[in-house]
Amino acid sequence: MTEQGPREYRALWMEGDKVKMIDQRALPEHFQIIELTQVGEVARAIKNMTVRGAPAIGAASAYGMALAAMDGSDLSEAAGLLKAQRPTAFDLFFAVDHMLERLRRGNDPIEAANDYAESIIKKCRLIGEHGAPLIKEGGKVMTHCNAGALATVDYGTALAPLRVAWRAGRRFFVYVSETRPRLQGMKLTAYELWNEGIPLSIIVDGASGHFLRQGVDLVIVGADRIALNGDFANKIGTFEKAVLAKELGVPFYVAAPVSTFDPRMVDGRGITIEDRGEDEVTMLDGKRIAPQGCTALNPSFDMTPAKYVTGFITEVGILRPSEVHRIKEAII
Amino acid sequence: MTEQGPREYRALWMEGDKVKMIDQRALPEHFQIIELTQVGEVARAIKNMTVRGAPAIGAASAYGMALAAMDGSDLSEAAGLLKAQRPTAFDLFFAVDHMLERLRRGNDPIEAANDYAESIIKKCRLIGEHGAPLIKEGGKVMTHCNAGALATVDYGTALAPLRVAWRAGRRFFVYVSETRPRLQGMKLTAYELWNEGIPLSIIVDGASGHFLRQGVDLVIVGADRIALNGDFANKIGTFEKAVLAKELGVPFYVAAPVSTFDPRMVDGRGITIEDRGEDEVTMLDGKRIAPQGCTALNPSFDMTPAKYVTGFITEVGILRPSEVHRIKEAII
Repeated sequence: MTEQGPREYRALWMEGDKVKMIDQRALPEHFQIIELTQVGEVARAIKNMTVRGAPAIGAASAYGMALAAMDGSDLSEAAGLLKAQRPTAFDLFFAVDHMLERLRRGNDPIEAANDYAESIIKKCRLIGEHGAPLIKEGGKVMTHCNAGALATVDYGTALAPLRVAWRAGRRFFVYVSETRPRLQGMKLTAYELWNEGIPLSIIVDGASGHFLRQGVDLVIVGADRIALNGDFANKIGTFEKAVLAKELGVPFYVAAPVSTFDPRMVDGRGITIEDRGEDEVTMLDGKRIAPQGCTALNPSFDMTPAKYVTGFITEVGILRPSEVHRIKEAII
Repeated sequence: MTEQGPREYRALWMEGDKVKMIDQRALPEHFQIIELTQVGEVARAIKNMTVRGAPAIGAASAYGMALAAMDGSDLSEAAGLLKAQRPTAFDLFFAVDHMLERLRRGNDPIEAANDYAESIIKKCRLIGEHGAPLIKEGGKVMTHCNAGALATVDYGTALAPLRVAWRAGRRFFVYVSETRPRLQGMKLTAYELWNEGIPLSIIVDGASGHFLRQGVDLVIVGADRIALNGDFANKIGTFEKAVLAKELGVPFYVAAPVSTFDPRMVDGRGITIEDRGEDEVTMLDGKRIAPQGCTALNPSFDMTPAKYVTGFITEVGILRPSEVHRIKEAII
């Protein structure tokens, strides 16, 4: 654990012909950097959640495509491999297709992947600037899972407005729901906010409704895929917070770059929800915590209908759910 | 772990002049019976959750009062000690006052406490019979925390209708939400249902909304205290399920004996919510899982307004929230 204070994370980057990334599974206990030299290794890192968070998965797959191009691998095979690792996050598909297009045009692989990663950071900064005015002085904010710097190369999506507001001197408090089964809220978001100096309390996921009723000014979460009607997929537990926020009159915002909007997805019913298997629920640190013989279901994401969303904070501004269809023209 | 099949648990009982109880903190890994001979030991067992669940806490405190009476302790001091251990469950207060009254009348302490425990079991059986017709053949049920045999001396409150329906040959499936932070859903309810042979899947608390939308016929939970307008307190996470169930059109039932209704509580705003300290959230099996420096909030219960409740399943039948005020005449 380093000293408290603002810091740059850079969840992943390229150094020479190697991809380097923070092993997010080891946080917050250990800050480990791993090196990858082949697209297959990048695919595994995406699958086993060494790197996670929709925009960061996008960047990782861009770097994976660069590695494939550099060692002369079949690019369409590499693209297929990367896309097969996680089915829900649209950034993964967006980034792979973007790289295929740039490589087809003869761009330098490293330059193309770096451009992609840099563009995410820039978009996250803009999301921060558009969203920061929503954070009130003395206010209370709730977030879920980790949509921070670690999820997005740097800066964050849901956490970007908090960072921008905090660095501008605004003072507020954040409820961080722990986010079972993998505890990315407790382990990553709390870690990022603490490093930044932002006051927070970790709560169990089931306490979200209790605290929303006690008074929260704003819920802000990330997204893994957004349909053109504003339905969106995000970490399991998001749908619950959205319903509770609406019931209790708390504004509910989704922060995501335009690359998270899927122009072929008419509504959320078509979004594939990844099932990550029961061990994430029934085991902890390699030890079984569930009774022998009992099974678990483990959908990694849920789908939240657009009617629960107050607005989408993107790099091009805040969109109401009814304005999301305009994104289609912007990205096609 | 014993063989699968129906079994009697009997969470606690008296043997000679000793109170015996299952150490529920050791389940499902270990089935340990502990012995208590003094009211102070019973108080500690209530506080540290060796015994938990509102009706079982009531029975434990009745046995605690019996121990105090048998060794000539000051009864009003013993009553004060027991009542101070956990602030939310009304059965605790009800049982202590019931015992004070019977001891004042000169009843035998062991007989009085055994009567109290037996009356809970009988009430739970009746709750099971009244509730069982709500369980449909081939249906899906969701429950939260543990309102089973372990929580109620035997049989259960929320689980009693499931037991009665199952033993009558009806076949159905149960979603068991794990119930962070202490995982009583995963560790106790799944264990009880598995022993009974009832098919179940454990889910993380945040997945409740996802599965409620996929199709659940009934949510059924216990209660720690019910106000006269039908507002009630139960394990943290209950309020979320109630709001989601209403939003998604799923009937939501609360199973509890009449002793859980507090005749002095006009509505839920007056119910004290126990705060159990942050270690239950930030530590697991003695190991810290949260980042250093980060704190947690840990309300053990939440309050659900009556408007989200379809009905209360009691030993005297199923009451609509609008009928709960009638309970007052029955218990005073």
